[in-house]
Amino acid sequence: MSTVAVIPGDGIGPEVMAEVLKVHAVVEDVFGTGLKTEVLPYSADWFLEHGDVEIDIQAIRRDHRAVLLGALGDARIPDNRHAIRVIGGLRQQLELGVNLRPVRLRTLRHCPLKHVNAVEDVDLVIVRENTEDVYVGVGGTVRGGSPGHVAMEVGVHTRWAVDRVVTAAFELARSRRRRLTLVDKSNAMPSAGPLWQGRFRAIAASYPDVECDHLYVDAAAMELIRDPARFDVVVAGNLFGDILSDEASMLAGGLGVAPSASYNPDDTDFAGVFEAVHGSAPDLVGTGRANPLASVMSYSLMLDRLGLRAAHAAVERAVDEVLCGDLLTPDLGGTARTDEVGDLICRAV
Amino acid sequence: MSTVAVIPGDGIGPEVMAEVLKVHAVVEDVFGTGLKTEVLPYSADWFLEHGDVEIDIQAIRRDHRAVLLGALGDARIPDNRHAIRVIGGLRQQLELGVNLRPVRLRTLRHCPLKHVNAVEDVDLVIVRENTEDVYVGVGGTVRGGSPGHVAMEVGVHTRWAVDRVVTAAFELARSRRRRLTLVDKSNAMPSAGPLWQGRFRAIAASYPDVECDHLYVDAAAMELIRDPARFDVVVAGNLFGDILSDEASMLAGGLGVAPSASYNPDDTDFAGVFEAVHGSAPDLVGTGRANPLASVMSYSLMLDRLGLRAAHAAVERAVDEVLCGDLLTPDLGGTARTDEVGDLICRAV
Ligand SMILES: CC(C)[C@H](C(=O)O)[C@@H](O)C(=O)O
Ligand SMILES: CC(C)[C@H](C(=O)O)[C@@H](O)C(=O)O
Repeated sequence: MSTVAVIPGDGIGPEVMAEVLKVHAVVEDVFGTGLKTEVLPYSADWFLEHGDVEIDIQAIRRDHRAVLLGALGDARIPDNRHAIRVIGGLRQQLELGVNLRPVRLRTLRHCPLKHVNAVEDVDLVIVRENTEDVYVGVGGTVRGGSPGHVAMEVGVHTRWAVDRVVTAAFELARSRRRRLTLVDKSNAMPSAGPLWQGRFRAIAASYPDVECDHLYVDAAAMELIRDPARFDVVVAGNLFGDILSDEASMLAGGLGVAPSASYNPDDTDFAGVFEAVHGSAPDLVGTGRANPLASVMSYSLMLDRLGLRAAHAAVERAVDEVLCGDLLTPDLGGTARTDEVGDLICRAV
Repeated sequence: MSTVAVIPGDGIGPEVMAEVLKVHAVVEDVFGTGLKTEVLPYSADWFLEHGDVEIDIQAIRRDHRAVLLGALGDARIPDNRHAIRVIGGLRQQLELGVNLRPVRLRTLRHCPLKHVNAVEDVDLVIVRENTEDVYVGVGGTVRGGSPGHVAMEVGVHTRWAVDRVVTAAFELARSRRRRLTLVDKSNAMPSAGPLWQGRFRAIAASYPDVECDHLYVDAAAMELIRDPARFDVVVAGNLFGDILSDEASMLAGGLGVAPSASYNPDDTDFAGVFEAVHGSAPDLVGTGRANPLASVMSYSLMLDRLGLRAAHAAVERAVDEVLCGDLLTPDLGGTARTDEVGDLICRAV
């Protein structure tokens, strides 16, 4: 029997995860996936109670086929160190080097841009490297607290990780509209730039059917607004992927509909970590205004990666149907509550 | 007598600079600023002819009160090393630690966002640190070209530079709507984060009249689209400021109307470097489609910083008038040519 670890986490995490579990119960009924869920307690409360302890990430990997994560973030913990501990721990210790962040518009109403007049014009996937760059925590401080204070933050990029994520991006582009844009800042990063560009070119040779493009990250941040239709698949380092995916999510309705999948392309047993791009949104807790769709869509990405194609297709169809309707949470201009949207997805599956 | 160095540069640089010089001739006639201009030859052609030589930045500083820069960028020079040489050289060697990038909407027609329904909702200034971060060129490569290739890129942040830019941002906020947002990524940058946050808090104590806000850079990239009205002044490091200012420029019509000013707050003789945020746009060269307004607006920022208030006000009024009219370049939906827009500004001054 397979189990999926569920980490509801903080803030609206438990609220949206409750809807995912309802949807999963229906999927289970209809498709008999055989996937059981097991809730893990990691949250701000748990960390405040137990102290700043390491959690056993390898045990999570051993005991589960995937992780569904709600949200982690709590103002009581400075800079959400517990979030980095859990999310960063999973990504780095399980070598989840590929982070997929699809952005697809379902109805023009949800696009904030006046000049987008076909839903097909916003249909892109950001493929973010997920383990390196400034996220390695390498750096240091000289003369901290004095007028001579110097802080250094080191972005580390290895060919090993760049190859994995660039290859995954080319594969994905091949399965889509066959266009891949590399985003970097090689004009200001003389060390990381050549590595990304060199490996991108080298790997591109194996994908002559994929059209290649390149943008500096500042230009990419602009082009996402100016002409989203130019993007199919975008590959970027961890930091730029983080920034661009939050920005891009706005083009299709915002963080309420922004899912993500983090996986290790070489791990055939463990499917990865599936989580909404949004955070714990403390201001929405208890209001019923949280949109559960980003988490439901992340769950759907998990079904896909687990090879449960029929279940995945059914959830995708249900999400499309709900997104094209009027029963939506306030972030999408509706008045529905979190659980009403969840119920609707369940009925549509 | 004072002179201003003019570096037309590459691509559309000379075309838009020609319009700035026309506008300056009128300003000179009307206001008698006494500012002469002197054209400097630095461009891709010049570098290709002379080789990758250092240029004497201090001589530029000694001989001129300011620099007006068109654009630098040419596909023949990998990663535009000459652009970094000139622009980076000016910024770093002259300690132009403050980069102002104002974004102000003049007419709703130029805003791509459906939900913006008052021009006042897009009126912000990004204050970008301009000398440090990854732009210091510190980093290195281990085992380059082999499967074990590791590239490291170091962002350097000093209290000295952070204090200068944060103080400038607070001063600016005080002269505007008194709201300042710090953007960083302290949750993933344990060294740079505390420096920026600590200094921001310390300096904020001297500005109790300014409301302070903080966003992680990924959230800021989203919020610029979701709710631009929440921003008045934004302060950020060099890399994040670069990305966010390109993105933000789109909210008011794009790079065609995005000016910038780079200055050393402690240099009372030299006003700084004034340049459009856009690049050399090789595809527009010779088409007459280049928008000269970003350069004219940068020129206007120079007049302001030189204390030429009446001339500055006249150029600002002229720009506002032109932007609210119909005679505009194609990037703003018009059919006018570069020189027609320049002529219109001249008449309006
Ligand atoms: C919580 C934070 C460290 C994280 C990141 O920056 O990776 C988040 O923004 C994300 O995108 O998943
Ligand atoms: C040319 C490039 C190095 C430069 C930068 O990144 O600073 C440009 O994008 C800018 O914003 O002025």
